[in-house]
Amino acid sequence: MKTILYPEKKMWELLCKRPVFDQGELTQTVQNILNKIKKHGDKALVKYSAEFDNVVLKSFKVPDKEMEQSVLQVSKELKGAINTAKQNIEKFHKAQFLSEEIIETTKGVKCWRKNVCIEKVGLYIPGGSAPLFSTVLMLGIPARIAGCREVILCTPCDREKKINPAILYAAQLVGIHKIFKIGGAQAIAAMAYGTESVERVNKIFGPGNQYVTKAKELIQQYGVAIDMPAGPSEVLIIADETCNPEFVAADLLAQAEHGADSQVVFLTTNQELAKKVENEMKKQLNKLARKQIIFNALKNSFAVILNSIDECIEFSNMYAPEHLILFVRQSKKITGKIINAGSVFIGNYSCESAGDYASGTNHTLPTNGHARSYSGVSLDSFMKKISFQEISIEGIANLGPAIEIMAEAENLTAHKNAVTLRLKTLDND
Amino acid sequence: MKTILYPEKKMWELLCKRPVFDQGELTQTVQNILNKIKKHGDKALVKYSAEFDNVVLKSFKVPDKEMEQSVLQVSKELKGAINTAKQNIEKFHKAQFLSEEIIETTKGVKCWRKNVCIEKVGLYIPGGSAPLFSTVLMLGIPARIAGCREVILCTPCDREKKINPAILYAAQLVGIHKIFKIGGAQAIAAMAYGTESVERVNKIFGPGNQYVTKAKELIQQYGVAIDMPAGPSEVLIIADETCNPEFVAADLLAQAEHGADSQVVFLTTNQELAKKVENEMKKQLNKLARKQIIFNALKNSFAVILNSIDECIEFSNMYAPEHLILFVRQSKKITGKIINAGSVFIGNYSCESAGDYASGTNHTLPTNGHARSYSGVSLDSFMKKISFQEISIEGIANLGPAIEIMAEAENLTAHKNAVTLRLKTLDND
Repeated sequence: MKTILYPEKKMWELLCKRPVFDQGELTQTVQNILNKIKKHGDKALVKYSAEFDNVVLKSFKVPDKEMEQSVLQVSKELKGAINTAKQNIEKFHKAQFLSEEIIETTKGVKCWRKNVCIEKVGLYIPGGSAPLFSTVLMLGIPARIAGCREVILCTPCDREKKINPAILYAAQLVGIHKIFKIGGAQAIAAMAYGTESVERVNKIFGPGNQYVTKAKELIQQYGVAIDMPAGPSEVLIIADETCNPEFVAADLLAQAEHGADSQVVFLTTNQELAKKVENEMKKQLNKLARKQIIFNALKNSFAVILNSIDECIEFSNMYAPEHLILFVRQSKKITGKIINAGSVFIGNYSCESAGDYASGTNHTLPTNGHARSYSGVSLDSFMKKISFQEISIEGIANLGPAIEIMAEAENLTAHKNAVTLRLKTLDND
Repeated sequence: MKTILYPEKKMWELLCKRPVFDQGELTQTVQNILNKIKKHGDKALVKYSAEFDNVVLKSFKVPDKEMEQSVLQVSKELKGAINTAKQNIEKFHKAQFLSEEIIETTKGVKCWRKNVCIEKVGLYIPGGSAPLFSTVLMLGIPARIAGCREVILCTPCDREKKINPAILYAAQLVGIHKIFKIGGAQAIAAMAYGTESVERVNKIFGPGNQYVTKAKELIQQYGVAIDMPAGPSEVLIIADETCNPEFVAADLLAQAEHGADSQVVFLTTNQELAKKVENEMKKQLNKLARKQIIFNALKNSFAVILNSIDECIEFSNMYAPEHLILFVRQSKKITGKIINAGSVFIGNYSCESAGDYASGTNHTLPTNGHARSYSGVSLDSFMKKISFQEISIEGIANLGPAIEIMAEAENLTAHKNAVTLRLKTLDND
């Protein structure tokens, strides 16, 4: 991890740019997959599963028997941990349900908004080296609290046509029973267009590789919403002398193990501390299973020495990190200065792993600088707000003349007419 | 407007499909404009303004003098109406600011979310036949309540290089002082990439023609958020014998005047009523300025006779209208059945024009079936929610073991290590 000493402000923007990976023919490849699924449905799914996942599937839905067996296959210990996480995630997300009052904006004019769930949602859980049952909780729990009528889940199976039992256990625990053994861009297409086996949904959630990400980006054009644009995971850590360098190093490494394209950034005012952290990272790295991934991720990563903690916050706001960890004196006092971040972890014991798994906050967060304009997934992501209004005779009498004047000034005479006719009936009364 | 009698349910989906307009070479054309603005900045803006808007501009920012003059040019009457609308919109949107409690999910584990404004936003206001100062209010007011640090506005000028004074007046009234005479896809590109004159923003709002819409769709790939996907405006009206057919007709016509691509749908159980409404429409149409636009919009429009009001609601939920007007007995009682809609208007005096201008609700709403998964613009659209957590020694002691088990089961040993190190220091105490 290279260290940059006191960079001038005009260099900051460059440092805040995320590494860009060549997408080559990705768009065309993924668009072809989408088109094929749209046209041929299940038949195309069978073909792609054989081609990409090396399995020949006759049906995609996980059978009841496999669902039941998964419950027996997960250790008691892991079940307990998953249950603890579920309780916390539930508690935090349930508290996000806030209903708004009816507002009488003008006498006789009542306006309000109502939270209504999105009817049908689809969750995507990647396969690969890490069986992300934690993401099943993070997406499935708010979907259930919102009251979504249909929640389906797609995830690729292994070559033995099996899905990791912890994924199936977590899904059942949160009330998801329609799970399909489908991965990649074809899974996103199946949920977006519907096939003979898979019901079409209104919104698609979840992480994935570049094919999945591109598919989610493209299907928005066909009226299907997605949770947020995706990018490689990242952390930015700000620390001063009050930190424990061992903890800082551990959190940087934890982030780096997500993937070779992850980025970790370390900001401090103390060059000595940066060295200590780097040494600690070297020490800890050797004991970790995903050493090579971490090693590669650290190539995209850097430390920056700045003049003050305020400058660190300013840099962080420009970077807009997915995760921001504050290991500084009176961390909580400076939280008011944080403008752009996905999720913030305060103090020596608030490690990112806690938020990734079990503290209750959601781990599906805006990366790649999107924290400037997007929030992480929350209960809100599974609902929409419908506005309502009820205007009485008194209300239209009060407000009608203003509407007529404005509609006239915008040259929309039919808009004006709709009010004029109503006002006329009042005159007759 | 054609009338469809008691269609079978399998036909509903087809009826709910929106008319599709051929986009031809649109994507490539707009992508070229984006690329040129990104590369050449203001120079390209000058070129496109000459080419598309027939004006040669030396600078784009509306000068102070033109801003000041606009205040004198708007009639006292219109100012009064705009002020009334502003007050109502402000009242309704201010009430949308809800802050959440700190939740202690496990003893020692505190989690919360904080509303933070999006720093820089750009508003687009179309030119053309209707000077949409009402949209300036609908976007500018929540932007200001949210506290956005930078709010800029782009709108095309006429051939005399002027902007409608009502737009400039409304902008100043809500505290927007950086207004640029730029229209079309090039305006979206300027706000997305920044140019010498126009600052880059984090999120872009506002309606526009197909070029603007396509530009908004495309710039999302470059990390700029947009309010929502756009489509032609639409209304669905459900009425029974308690309605005033004159009002129903007026509201259908008001919607139809938005554009030839608008769609209006009328649902009722009473065929006689449908005829009355149609006759009323014919009567009123002749007096309206935008007769030809309405006439064309009605070609895409239809009435459906169904068996019950419940069926009407079911159809409406499938259609997911931008605007839904209920002219039925005890309208308020059936609002609980409404699942998909942008904004709902209840009863004979709640005309859509009220929500379009002055009742207080926002008029920027999801069209084209997007109401299935999107909300209209609100204060939320100008903010994001950052999650925070603070875990004490007691908290990590309580939660740490569960995190270790889950991280291990996901094969993320560096995540586990970050917790193990912390737990070890507790053992030493």
